[in-house]
Amino acid sequence: MPELPTIEDIRRAADRIRPHVHRTPVLTCQSLDRMTGCTLFFKPENLQKVGAFKFRGACNAVFSLGEEQASRGVATHSSGNHAAALALAAARRGIEAYIVMPENAPAVKKAAVSGYGAEITYCLPTLQAREQGLDRVVARTGAVFIHPYDNPMVIAGQGTAALELLEDVPKLDIVIAPVGGGGLMSGTALSVAALSSSTRIVGAEPKGADDAFRSLEAGRLIPSENPRTIADGLLTSLGSLTFPILSGHLERIVTVSEQAIIEAMRHVWERMKILIEPSSAVPLAAVFEGNWNQRGKRIGIILSGGNVNLDQLPWSSFGLPPA
Amino acid sequence: MPELPTIEDIRRAADRIRPHVHRTPVLTCQSLDRMTGCTLFFKPENLQKVGAFKFRGACNAVFSLGEEQASRGVATHSSGNHAAALALAAARRGIEAYIVMPENAPAVKKAAVSGYGAEITYCLPTLQAREQGLDRVVARTGAVFIHPYDNPMVIAGQGTAALELLEDVPKLDIVIAPVGGGGLMSGTALSVAALSSSTRIVGAEPKGADDAFRSLEAGRLIPSENPRTIADGLLTSLGSLTFPILSGHLERIVTVSEQAIIEAMRHVWERMKILIEPSSAVPLAAVFEGNWNQRGKRIGIILSGGNVNLDQLPWSSFGLPPA
Repeated sequence: MPELPTIEDIRRAADRIRPHVHRTPVLTCQSLDRMTGCTLFFKPENLQKVGAFKFRGACNAVFSLGEEQASRGVATHSSGNHAAALALAAARRGIEAYIVMPENAPAVKKAAVSGYGAEITYCLPTLQAREQGLDRVVARTGAVFIHPYDNPMVIAGQGTAALELLEDVPKLDIVIAPVGGGGLMSGTALSVAALSSSTRIVGAEPKGADDAFRSLEAGRLIPSENPRTIADGLLTSLGSLTFPILSGHLERIVTVSEQAIIEAMRHVWERMKILIEPSSAVPLAAVFEGNWNQRGKRIGIILSGGNVNLDQLPWSSFGLPPA
Repeated sequence: MPELPTIEDIRRAADRIRPHVHRTPVLTCQSLDRMTGCTLFFKPENLQKVGAFKFRGACNAVFSLGEEQASRGVATHSSGNHAAALALAAARRGIEAYIVMPENAPAVKKAAVSGYGAEITYCLPTLQAREQGLDRVVARTGAVFIHPYDNPMVIAGQGTAALELLEDVPKLDIVIAPVGGGGLMSGTALSVAALSSSTRIVGAEPKGADDAFRSLEAGRLIPSENPRTIADGLLTSLGSLTFPILSGHLERIVTVSEQAIIEAMRHVWERMKILIEPSSAVPLAAVFEGNWNQRGKRIGIILSGGNVNLDQLPWSSFGLPPA
């Protein structure tokens, strides 16, 4: 098993990716403060390149490679933001990116990945087909597999968002982020634990995809089974790196209803005038819905991304996912 | 006629409103740079309090009042962002705001204004009824009328957005803003002319509401007649202060089609992950659609606001306004 990343890895990541990423601002919103009874500081990674925090980790992983490794390119399987992030990071370094995508991925995601110049291999929409497709690509090209979250350099890159937040906002009582595979949450936890030891570190998950909550309760990694949530970035299970990091650092994971996610998402759109995807709304939903000693506190919230289909918004035709 | 505001008025406005407004960031977007062939720097006033630049001007006007005047409160007639902006500014100073609104104003706008504690008087949806309603309110209360744009303190406040933009981004070739009543454009022009004399100052208007374009062509103020555009913040005519300021400082006004406005708005939502209202998209539409020696240039764009009805987006059911 690779070693767990450290705060020094995160600091090095920040230096490495600085020329390539947006330093996102910190946003505040008095309406949401009033509605939640808290003082909220948002780190809007939906404003990051490719519309998600994923570009930080992908960029750090790609620019950490030695010349020889890099010359063979990078590869991953993903239907989501990590694919686009890796494609853009590779393009910036001038190396090849090979992306295995399920053939039923949204056309807009396919277009984004190919727009960054990556080579796409389509496969059946099963995890087995994706992994086999990736194996074949790696065997053919020698490209380096960059896992979307269970990779120390990816985790270190994701941790730079919280690093910037802590530089900009002193004395946070709580930092909260969404938990999918746990890459963002792990990087966030490592930064906060190292730089602000009295700050409580909290994760947020949909009730319908609560594998991390159950894993931390059980003290062992319980994979996600048939997750059902509108927060489509949070369907994956924790990994061999992210599980121990979260176990070691999180005060708790707060789980939220689908209705709370949609309402929180709409509040952010209406009050803050920024587009966030459902996964991004999960921590704010936890602040609204939960009861975990958060009232009156100074809370940093990582907004993970903003990639949504503008023709299908959850408060109009879409609603909750089908049973 | 009141004297025209100066750069010193704008600097004083910046100091005066600093404790009350958001200093909005400057955003960049490589996708939009590639699509337009320009280097764009966006000043996102949709992220300003009340969701629009209007709060800057209202705040400056309210906090410029002497104690005696202020004690009688402020008044205006408006169905839009100025009403909410004035209501919040008055609330922050702890004085009354009296708002005359047409009875058919959107429920969400009524709720915003009353949510800030203002007293609303409803009237028929005609300019005459609004002005008569305002006269009665002023006669009854002694409140100070704060015009939405033809007021030197309002114009000076609006100029602080461009002031911040120029502080953050050096060497802009062009600054462009939308033109409705001309308050934002006037403040922008005064800041840019004073601080960056080689920067070209350009306005943008819908073809369906091109009274400012025609006024500048004719050299006299031509009021807006039956304007028709989705950019509902740009329906008003120039005023006695804004017309001479624009005449004196603008290189040109670029007019754009409805289709270009909707496309530019959607590009900003999709690529930048921020909500802007149609009026805000007009300058970017001018960069896309026009041919006015803008290619390859460093262009500052003021995004005016982000107050939209999320249940009725122009690329879904709404489309162009009815004939």
